[in-house]
Amino acid sequence: MKKSLLALAALTAFAGVASAQSSVTLFGIVDQSVFWTKNDNTSLKGVASNQLNSNRLGFRGVEDMGGGLKAGFWLEAGMTNETGAVGGSNGFGSVMFNRRSTVSLMGNFGEVRIGRDYTPSFWNYTIFDPFGTNGPGSMLNLVNPLGGGNVTLVRDNSTVGYFLPAMGGLYGQLQMAAGQGLQGQKYQGGRLGYAAGPLNVAAAYGKTSQTGAMIDGYTDKNIGASYAFGPATLIGQYSKRDYSSLDQKTWLIAGTYAIGASTLKASFTKSNGSSSALQAKQWAVGYQYDMSKRTALYTTYSSINNDTGAAMNVGLGLGSVAGGKSQGLVLGVRHAF
Amino acid sequence: MKKSLLALAALTAFAGVASAQSSVTLFGIVDQSVFWTKNDNTSLKGVASNQLNSNRLGFRGVEDMGGGLKAGFWLEAGMTNETGAVGGSNGFGSVMFNRRSTVSLMGNFGEVRIGRDYTPSFWNYTIFDPFGTNGPGSMLNLVNPLGGGNVTLVRDNSTVGYFLPAMGGLYGQLQMAAGQGLQGQKYQGGRLGYAAGPLNVAAAYGKTSQTGAMIDGYTDKNIGASYAFGPATLIGQYSKRDYSSLDQKTWLIAGTYAIGASTLKASFTKSNGSSSALQAKQWAVGYQYDMSKRTALYTTYSSINNDTGAAMNVGLGLGSVAGGKSQGLVLGVRHAF
Amino acid sequence: MKKSLLALAALTAFAGVASAQSSVTLFGIVDQSVFWTKNDNTSLKGVASNQLNSNRLGFRGVEDMGGGLKAGFWLEAGMTNETGAVGGSNGFGSVMFNRRSTVSLMGNFGEVRIGRDYTPSFWNYTIFDPFGTNGPGSMLNLVNPLGGGNVTLVRDNSTVGYFLPAMGGLYGQLQMAAGQGLQGQKYQGGRLGYAAGPLNVAAAYGKTSQTGAMIDGYTDKNIGASYAFGPATLIGQYSKRDYSSLDQKTWLIAGTYAIGASTLKASFTKSNGSSSALQAKQWAVGYQYDMSKRTALYTTYSSINNDTGAAMNVGLGLGSVAGGKSQGLVLGVRHAF
Repeated sequence: MKKSLLALAALTAFAGVASAQSSVTLFGIVDQSVFWTKNDNTSLKGVASNQLNSNRLGFRGVEDMGGGLKAGFWLEAGMTNETGAVGGSNGFGSVMFNRRSTVSLMGNFGEVRIGRDYTPSFWNYTIFDPFGTNGPGSMLNLVNPLGGGNVTLVRDNSTVGYFLPAMGGLYGQLQMAAGQGLQGQKYQGGRLGYAAGPLNVAAAYGKTSQTGAMIDGYTDKNIGASYAFGPATLIGQYSKRDYSSLDQKTWLIAGTYAIGASTLKASFTKSNGSSSALQAKQWAVGYQYDMSKRTALYTTYSSINNDTGAAMNVGLGLGSVAGGKSQGLVLGVRHAF
Repeated sequence: MKKSLLALAALTAFAGVASAQSSVTLFGIVDQSVFWTKNDNTSLKGVASNQLNSNRLGFRGVEDMGGGLKAGFWLEAGMTNETGAVGGSNGFGSVMFNRRSTVSLMGNFGEVRIGRDYTPSFWNYTIFDPFGTNGPGSMLNLVNPLGGGNVTLVRDNSTVGYFLPAMGGLYGQLQMAAGQGLQGQKYQGGRLGYAAGPLNVAAAYGKTSQTGAMIDGYTDKNIGASYAFGPATLIGQYSKRDYSSLDQKTWLIAGTYAIGASTLKASFTKSNGSSSALQAKQWAVGYQYDMSKRTALYTTYSSINNDTGAAMNVGLGLGSVAGGKSQGLVLGVRHAF
Repeated sequence: MKKSLLALAALTAFAGVASAQSSVTLFGIVDQSVFWTKNDNTSLKGVASNQLNSNRLGFRGVEDMGGGLKAGFWLEAGMTNETGAVGGSNGFGSVMFNRRSTVSLMGNFGEVRIGRDYTPSFWNYTIFDPFGTNGPGSMLNLVNPLGGGNVTLVRDNSTVGYFLPAMGGLYGQLQMAAGQGLQGQKYQGGRLGYAAGPLNVAAAYGKTSQTGAMIDGYTDKNIGASYAFGPATLIGQYSKRDYSSLDQKTWLIAGTYAIGASTLKASFTKSNGSSSALQAKQWAVGYQYDMSKRTALYTTYSSINNDTGAAMNVGLGLGSVAGGKSQGLVLGVRHAF
């Protein structure tokens, strides 16, 4: 899905400077679909992006400095292609490279990374879900960050992170953000996983803490696992978020089945919490056809049943009715470059 | 005006994957001029962009998936180079890729395109005008979309479009946008044309319709033709817009004459409508010198005479006086990359 | 720090068109640091960008049109990498290519440049300071543009500029902006310098003038020089700004010492002015280690002593206390691409 655009030109420009080998990669995804959604008695149809993968436009590169040392950068913007919008909220306003904006030093010791980045406690949500974090089928439709001012569910600003080097199947990372006096940005978290053969399992913990009472003590714990039986993969995930007297537990059981260029997907997600506003169930089924490595056609259908007081929805532009049902259907094309 | 920047690198990265040939193209235009404008007794001078062609910065690419099937994307931002601004209004706020943001599937059947795109009813305005849609000479200075909330004169969000495949000289397209509950975005339109030898002729129709009474029933009908007699080209255009009890008719007669790297341009535009506020005349003359295929020097002068009540102007930063005269002169350089 | 990304592809695309040789360059800097700052009794720590060099992402290119004539463009955006923000204020709102957005014609006559660009009166501030305009050590921490509405200290919109061609060691430029009725944008200035062997010296003058009384008559005069004694370089700078009854004089004495990949830096800056609010002293020391041509580790410490009434600070996110002390320490990595 990416190309080292500049490899050849770079070699020319830096010919004779052995330690300055470099490549800059321009990469992106444009994903557009037509959708239909119905929340109780209200329905809407139209065009929506991000329903299989998140739209993005990015620039990244790695410099080999010799002696095993490397430096790298990563600048990645989100996009809403049906309107032409680029970037999005970083929790404190709209910015261009809202998805990731980092500089790294890498070596045998692993990687030190500074900037705006995903939190360690986010990754299991997307990796252990056949619908990732996109579209009407994503488990994230039921996940509530509880504290309104908390912005660390997916990413955080001004982070310093450390990633383990390759160590057999073990992988892991730590991250902290000092917060710099901004509400909901002070964060400490980590993730540890193991992937080998058909198995992948990982657990993560994150804490968002700050003098501001509103955010103090928000925690996110989650664990996920997947196991491949030939063409079939079984996936499970469990997460729990706590904030003040509120808590929410979400679990998912899902599977995928690959036949040639086709992949079938199904998931069931259930959320329980400290109030009925946090309780709902979601069924989702999907089909993806890979026209090429970069281009896919897909469809996803899901249905959410809210408990009394809950108003979760499939995220296709319609508000929810408390205790109501929300359905979504998308049919789209995803093109990566 | 474009370069396949990444063709070589892409071939390397995808060597052995026959169906994944690809190219990504970075392209753009920087057009800056010094201007003088006078509206009745007020004058202003300074620097303005977009006076020959619209400034832009874009990324686009096509993937050949084999079997005659292709996938492509197109992301194009407008620019106001004298301030450094990028992007602009999409009718509902400021976005980066305001000019075009689409994904396409192409084959023998033609092209299906999804995203933010030009409306079919726009193209004749720019193609059948020697000054396109840019600068003091453009016929668009006199074109009024009538309904204040209508945003489909040039482009629309969330469109699904279909383009005919190559069929002799015949070309055409259809487009619809569901509107998604947003005022002035629900659109249906089409365009059909024929180009062969010295002749090019096309007609288009677009309807912007929505529950909101304000926009209901806005239509745009237009037709244009050009015929080349050796170095001279004769151009004519007629358009009519209707909305509620308002209507406006605009016609243009124009010509260009090419001598080596030089092109002379002249046009006369007249607008009539349901009120005197919609009536005006415009004379324009221009000269363009192509220093290379990519870089041109140009100058344009135009003068608008408004009828009583009309306040149209040459678009160089000065407000108009009803019933007054508006003049503009630009001298600039356009560089494409 | 830059690469001609597209040289090879361009040659292919334009093969046979001798006058259309071209290259487009993508370039940038990602600079992130951890910081500690203390202003009197308040301290803050966190992540900050731009502390060695200004973060940027840019596109630029030059077209050789033959006969010694060239055309070029330059689009350069600022970045705040710890949040993902791109662009910044152009004095009249937030734009993407806030650092530079120009088109140029170049030849034996020199260069004519149109667009948003640095003012001639800016350059000495950054060139004759070992800390440039970045971080706690920069002399700019003490420089006050006096008139609140003046936006020409660093750059201006809608400029037309002229640069001398190469003439031995002599270099120079003139610039003007008509202002276009916008407050604080009407500007006229120039700079003349001489660089040969170990010596570099330059002087500049700029005037920002406009009908609006607030800005009328703001002037910026400055002169700087550096002399290299082998690995050591001695630097001096003096500047004076005048506006209405206010004035400020700033002078700097500084030095750098290079040992292999390491560079030591030190500076002392003093500001005097028409009121005690404009009087302060700054000491700064820094160390830079170049891991490669593109990647550097660095640290800078500085301390500002404000006179009674002055509230200048090291620019790391903490407000100042009048008459107080401001300290800053940064430890970072700068990666150019």
